This record gives sequence, structure tokens and C-alpha cells, in this order.
Amino acid sequence: MPSENFAEKTAALRNLGPQRVWSLMISLFGDLAQGSGDVIEGPVLSAIMAALDVKPEAARVALHRLRNDGWITSTKVGRISHHMLSSKGRDESIGASPRIYADPPDAGEGWQVVIVPGNGTEDAEQMAVAGFTPVLPRVFAGPSGIIPPADSLVLTGGNVPSWLRDEIQPSDVQPDYIALQASLSDLDRALPKGTALSALETAVLRCLIVHNWRRLVLKHPLLPGALGDTRSPSHQCHIMVSELLARFPRPDLRKITLTDRTA
Amino acid sequence: MPSENFAEKTAALRNLGPQRVWSLMISLFGDLAQGSGDVIEGPVLSAIMAALDVKPEAARVALHRLRNDGWITSTKVGRISHHMLSSKGRDESIGASPRIYADPPDAGEGWQVVIVPGNGTEDAEQMAVAGFTPVLPRVFAGPSGIIPPADSLVLTGGNVPSWLRDEIQPSDVQPDYIALQASLSDLDRALPKGTALSALETAVLRCLIVHNWRRLVLKHPLLPGALGDTRSPSHQCHIMVSELLARFPRPDLRKITLTDRTA
Repeated sequence: MPSENFAEKTAALRNLGPQRVWSLMISLFGDLAQGSGDVIEGPVLSAIMAALDVKPEAARVALHRLRNDGWITSTKVGRISHHMLSSKGRDESIGASPRIYADPPDAGEGWQVVIVPGNGTEDAEQMAVAGFTPVLPRVFAGPSGIIPPADSLVLTGGNVPSWLRDEIQPSDVQPDYIALQASLSDLDRALPKGTALSALETAVLRCLIVHNWRRLVLKHPLLPGALGDTRSPSHQCHIMVSELLARFPRPDLRKITLTDRTA
Repeated sequence: MPSENFAEKTAALRNLGPQRVWSLMISLFGDLAQGSGDVIEGPVLSAIMAALDVKPEAARVALHRLRNDGWITSTKVGRISHHMLSSKGRDESIGASPRIYADPPDAGEGWQVVIVPGNGTEDAEQMAVAGFTPVLPRVFAGPSGIIPPADSLVLTGGNVPSWLRDEIQPSDVQPDYIALQASLSDLDRALPKGTALSALETAVLRCLIVHNWRRLVLKHPLLPGALGDTRSPSHQCHIMVSELLARFPRPDLRKITLTDRTA
């Protein structure tokens, strides 16, 4: 079982908005069992879910739903259930990972502004999927590495005026980033470099971080460093998420089996 | 007096839309007497106006109006009136000359796209005066040599898609450019390189060309070569205006005095 001390230190992160159990599970599998053939055994999953304050019945319902929706497959090996991402679940997870685990953007990286043709074939949603942030109608900004729509006017420049940074910040998720920033700051102080966590605690901590981060970053494209605001809550969250995930690397799931299975 | 043949060859240009006499006079002074201290003597002005099919009474009224509006000053030297641009008239004329006498834009010259701040301090009219063509709300294009408004996002790029060229062509003056193009093409064939014109004929020809060109080009900024359409009537007009004005350089006004004063 994780220590009461650990539960206290991660309380703020647990209380950030509604945490749907099935969604928490997707975060967990995506973080710890994304590899081909990666499995989370039933007792390990139960231990992690319990440590995340999820009741056994709620965990069973969520698992059932994820199997029905084709995200998770479960097989029995002897008396132990082996849960793993389905091929579809793994594809989705791999698809989202570059955005979730991206390094914080660097101010020196390339950026582009594109103006798309006026024939209406490029809508803002498609552009967001490609990684572009809307600036004005028909005008989008993004990292220089992504391929702009055919026949668009591709531009770049030098100085970025501050009004542009202000205008293109993702504003609707701003309050959520402010709340996450506060929780991550507390966590960063409570779990400084060198803090020893058990494998179970590490799995729970990473799941909480990845889950709360994922809920926000997947709602908008990542701005290239030069166009982002380094003082913004989203950028500050990004830095802390990166640091905390590096400070507490993925645990060996077999260690959870040994220490927590019988709890 | 100009030859009947000359009058016939320039007829199309004379008939392009309403030619207000005072406006023709501004074109004439701007083309032939823009320099400090440049004077057009009364008899020379009368000879040119007569060759432009302007009745003596209409010329007198126009001159009176231009004096009242502070464009022209007239002084008597002996029995001869000396007409010249006022200091204001000369300033206006000098201000418009770079646009009127600009070389046709070259596809290799630099261009910029600027996005202005959204605080509404930059309107399209101010931007046009500075030399920028509107592309989209808050987005303008222009030659790279002009200074963009403070705090704008200044961009440039490589390939220019054809929809951009189509969208930013000056469309409201398009019919007038088509008509001018036809007249200039006729003129270009009727007055090939090597054609000998008298000083009076040259003055009249230049006045007609400059006047009809000026009426259109001063209505919109000049697009940089890479953003313009070389097949467009405005670009084709520009090439012919440049060639014809080079083919028939400014005449010596004293020669008009000698040959036409007594006509």
C-alpha cells in the first residue's frame, strides 16, 4: 500500500476535476503498457486502482466498458487475468504520445504562419489535427516541421510581437492550466529530486500526472516555442510535467506484483 | 500644330473616360514642369491645351481653378504669363511621382506579408497610403522595402500560390485597365521606335499617357512583382507606359515656343 504521506502529497492532483475511471485507465495503460505485448496483470491493476482511490466495483465497470469499446483485451493465464491495450487502443495511445510526452518547446525552434486558400477546403478542426493553431480566419501558426495544406501561402518571420502570443494562447483551457500549475508546483516541492517512491507509488504518481496533463494538452495543438508565452500556465505545467516524469521513471510492474499483490 | 495623323493615332487615348481639364493640367505640369523653378509659358500652355482638344475658354477656367486651389501660381513677365506649380502643387506632384513613374515590378524583388495588431489602430486606408495591399482583415502584402506599422508581425515566404495573386489584384479598376491596355497597344503599334514626333506632339502624347495611367495607379498600391500577375492588364499597361515614356522623352519646352507659339 502507498504511504499515507504519499496520498496526502498527491491529494491536490487527485482532486483536479472529474476523473473518469475508464479515462484514468487509458492514461495508465498508455503510460505503462503501451509496448507491443505489454500486459498489466489483474492484481497489479487492482493495486494501482485502489491506490488511486478507485473502488473495486468502479474499476470492474470501467474495465468492462473499455473491453466493450475495443480499447482493452483481457485474457486468463491460469488464474490471473492479463489486461492489455487492443490493437486499436495501442494505435490511439501511440498517436497521442508525441503530444503528451513532447519536450517543452524551445524558443529557438522553427515556426511557420500559413494562409490557406479561400475555397473552404481547410477548416480549423483539420488544421488543429495537423498541429496548427488558428490566428485569424484562414491564418494559422505552427511548428515549421509540420506539412502545411497544399496550395497554402507559407510564411515565416523574425520578431514575434507580444499581442500575437497573447491572441493565440489556448484561452478556454487557461483556468484548468492554472489549477494544474498550482498542483504540480506543490508536488514538485513535496517530492524533490532524490525522493524514494515504491513502484506502486511511482505508477500512481505518473498516472495522475499524465492523466491531468493529457486532458488539457490534447484539446489544442502545441505552439512552437517562439510563439508561446514562457510565463503562461500551460508552458509552466509543461516544464513541470517533463521534470516530474523524468524524476520518477516508469516503474518495473513486476515489483508491484511482489510488494502489493497481497495487500 | 500637331499633324492630323498624330491626332488620329492618339484618339483612343483621348477618349478614355472623362478627362477633366484641370486634372489634365496637373498631369502636364507634373510631367514637364515639376522641377524647382520650372515654368510653362502662357503661349506654350495654350498650344498644348489646343492640341489636347481643350477649348481656350475651358483652359482659362481650369487654370483659374488651379490657382484658386493653390496648385498653380502665375506671374507676368513682360507680356508673357509664366505658370508654375505652387510649392504645395509641387510637393503633391513629387509625392505621386514614385508611383506614376515606377519601373514595372520585377518578380525577383522582395515582398512581405504583415499582420497588424488587433487594436484597430491600423486601418486599410493608412496601410494603402504606406503601400500595402489588403489580403485578409488585419493581413496586408507589400514590397519588402516599405516600413510596416510598429508592432506588426512581419512575414515572408517562398512560393506564392496563384489564388493569392488572384485575390489581391485591384479588381475595381480592372475594366479601366483593360480599356487602357487596348489603347496603349494601338499606340505602341502606331508609334513604333524611331517615330519622329515634334516637341508639341511629344508633350501631348506624354500628357495623355501619364494622365490616363495616373488616374488608375493612384487608386491602389503597387504590388511587388512576386505577388502581381504578369498577365494582368495592370501589369501589361505598366510595361507599355514605361516603354512609351522612355521612347518619347520629355521635350524641350522652348522648342514648342519656337514652332507653335504663333499657330
